[in-house]
Amino acid sequence: MSRFFSEKFSDLVPYVPGEQPQDQQYTKLNTNESPFPPSPAVVQAMRDAGASANLYCDPQCRVLCSAIAKEYGVQPDQVLPVNGSDEIINFAVMAFCDETHPLAYADITYGCYPVFADFNRVPSHIIPLREDFTIDYRDYCGLGETIVIANPNAPTGIALPKREIEQIVRTNPDNVVIVDEAYVAFGAESCVDLIDKYDNLLVCQTFSKSHSLAGARLGFGFAQASLLADINAIKYSTNPYNVNRMAQAAGAAAMADNGYYLSNCRTIMENREYTVEKLTELGFSVLPSKANFIFARTDRMEGGALYRALKRDGVLVRHFDKEKISDYLRISIGTREQMDVLLQKTRAILEQEGN
Amino acid sequence: MSRFFSEKFSDLVPYVPGEQPQDQQYTKLNTNESPFPPSPAVVQAMRDAGASANLYCDPQCRVLCSAIAKEYGVQPDQVLPVNGSDEIINFAVMAFCDETHPLAYADITYGCYPVFADFNRVPSHIIPLREDFTIDYRDYCGLGETIVIANPNAPTGIALPKREIEQIVRTNPDNVVIVDEAYVAFGAESCVDLIDKYDNLLVCQTFSKSHSLAGARLGFGFAQASLLADINAIKYSTNPYNVNRMAQAAGAAAMADNGYYLSNCRTIMENREYTVEKLTELGFSVLPSKANFIFARTDRMEGGALYRALKRDGVLVRHFDKEKISDYLRISIGTREQMDVLLQKTRAILEQEGN
Repeated sequence: MSRFFSEKFSDLVPYVPGEQPQDQQYTKLNTNESPFPPSPAVVQAMRDAGASANLYCDPQCRVLCSAIAKEYGVQPDQVLPVNGSDEIINFAVMAFCDETHPLAYADITYGCYPVFADFNRVPSHIIPLREDFTIDYRDYCGLGETIVIANPNAPTGIALPKREIEQIVRTNPDNVVIVDEAYVAFGAESCVDLIDKYDNLLVCQTFSKSHSLAGARLGFGFAQASLLADINAIKYSTNPYNVNRMAQAAGAAAMADNGYYLSNCRTIMENREYTVEKLTELGFSVLPSKANFIFARTDRMEGGALYRALKRDGVLVRHFDKEKISDYLRISIGTREQMDVLLQKTRAILEQEGN
Repeated sequence: MSRFFSEKFSDLVPYVPGEQPQDQQYTKLNTNESPFPPSPAVVQAMRDAGASANLYCDPQCRVLCSAIAKEYGVQPDQVLPVNGSDEIINFAVMAFCDETHPLAYADITYGCYPVFADFNRVPSHIIPLREDFTIDYRDYCGLGETIVIANPNAPTGIALPKREIEQIVRTNPDNVVIVDEAYVAFGAESCVDLIDKYDNLLVCQTFSKSHSLAGARLGFGFAQASLLADINAIKYSTNPYNVNRMAQAAGAAAMADNGYYLSNCRTIMENREYTVEKLTELGFSVLPSKANFIFARTDRMEGGALYRALKRDGVLVRHFDKEKISDYLRISIGTREQMDVLLQKTRAILEQEGN
C-alpha cells in the first residue's frame, strides 16, 4: 500500500481469485466454469453488439431485463443486471448494512462475503455450520440482521430447501435477506418466485456457470422494485454503465437459447453423480452437492498434498488452507472426459502413495 | 428508497446519464460517442473472446496491460484496466480521500466527481473557474488536498497545458492528483509520461471516445505501481473480475490497429474546426475545445429552447440546466454529414425564430 492510501483501509484483506495459470495444459476443474462454450447464437450476438460498441450501452439494460423477466416469470423492474453477481452482493452490503446493521453469514461459505463486509466496515456475525457442514436455518430465524446465504452453499455444495429459506426471510421482516443462487441451476430450489411475497428478499443469480458466461460477467438481482431502487442508487453513484453491450446482448440471446443451457446443466448433474460414485469407490467422502462442483476428502491422503500432486499431474482443483476444510478438495464438474482424467490421475496418485 | 436503505445514504443524489432515446431517428450528438465503429479486427477479437466466455477473464488483464504498455511507453505494472474510467475515478476517491482528505475540483466539470465524493462521504472543495471558463492552475498549487482535474475539461472542452498540470502535481507532493484525460486524444497534451517522475500522479484515460468503445466499457489508470496497488486493493475487495473477456480482447486488438483510431481522431478534430467555423458564422460563441465536443452559445436564442427545438427536429445535443452554463449547448463532434445536419437544422431554427 502506498503512503497515500486512506487509513480507513489500513487492514484491508482483498479477495484472492482462484489461480489461472496461462499455460493451457491443465484439466481445469478449479473455478467452477462450464466446460461448454456459449451457444452459436450467443457468440453471434456478442459479435454484433461489439460492432456497434462505439455507442454507449443502455444503463438500464431494458432489452435484457425484458428477456430475463419473460423467462423467469417476473416483471422487468424486478430484475437488475450487474457486472457479475459479486458486484450486486457488494452493492447490497453497501445498501443494507452499516455499523448498526451487521452482516450474518456462515463460517464456511463464499470467501467474498467477509471481504465485502470488511471493505464496507460492516460488522460480521459469523455463524458456524453444523458438524456435517449443513446450515441450521433456525440459526438465522428472527436474527434481526442483514443475512447472506449461498444456496447451494460454496464450497460445500449443500443446498437448503426453499421452505427453510422462506422461514428465514419471513422471520426477519425488517432486514434484507440476500440469497446467493450462483449455483442454483444444478439441482437446488430457487427462491425467485418468493420476491412478490417478501419485500426484504434479494435473490442473486449469475450466468457464469449455468449459461457459460463466466468471462462475460453477467449477474442479476431479483427483488421487488423498491429494493432494487436502492441498489440502483448505488450503481448510478459509482458506475452507471456497468454492464457492457456485449454482456447485455449475450444475456438476452442466452434466454432465447435457454434449452441449450438447461441441457448442459443436466449433463453437468449427470457427470457430478458419476464422479461422486467413482470417487466413493476410491474411498472418498463426498458432501451431497447440488452445485456444479463437489467437496470431497479421503483418509488416504491429506487435502493439500493431493491438490499439489494433481496439479503436478496436470489437473487443477481448489484447496482451501482453512480450518475445518483443509482436508477437502473442491472439484468443478466438467465433461465426462475431464472427470475421467481427474479420476484416473487421482487413482494413480493414491496408488503411488502406497495408500 | 426502501425502508431498508442504510441511513448513511439518505441524501444520496445519483448521477443521471445522458438521454438515450431508443428510437434511432436522431442525429445523436449528446454523449460524445465516436461516430466510427470499432475496426474489423477489434470486432473479430470480441467475437473470438465471446466464443470462450465460458472461461473466466484474467483478473489481472495481463495481455491487455502489455499491449497498452507497449503503445504508451510505460511498464505493464503501470497500467490498470477498469470497467470504464468512471470506475477508476470512484476507486481513487475511495482510496485517496476521506474525512480529512477532501476532494478538490472545479465548479464546472464532469458531473460524476461530486457524486463520487458524496457517495463516499468525502468533503468537496469546489473551486470556481475563471470568468472565461478556464482553470487557473494556481488555485490548485500547494492545496494539500486530493485533486481531480479533467483535461480537457468537460463540458467546456478547454485544456490546460501540461506544464501547468505538472506544477499542480509538483506542489502537492503529499496528495494524489487525478488527471482525467477522457478526451485527451483530440488535441490536448497527455501527462502519462510524468508518472515516472511523480508518485502522486494518477492519469485516467478511456477507450470510449478515441477508440470507439463506449459500449465496451474500457478505461485505464496510469501511475506508479505502488499507487495502482492501492486501487487494486479496492478492486479485489469489490469486484475482482471487473473487465470482461470481450473488453480485454477489444482493447488489445485496438492497440494493434491504433493507426485506424488515430486517423479517426484527426477526422473528428477537422470536423470540430469546421463546425466551430460555421457556428461562429451563425453568430455563436464557441469555447476553444480540445475535445470531441464543443460548448457553444448564441445571443439569438436561449440554450434550453435551442436544445428542445433541435430535439424536436431530430438532433440530440446536451443541455445542462445549471447556473453559469444554462445558455450553452454541449455538441458532440460526429461525421461531417452529422455536423451538416446540425448546422442546417440550427440555421433553420434561428431563422424560424426570426432572430
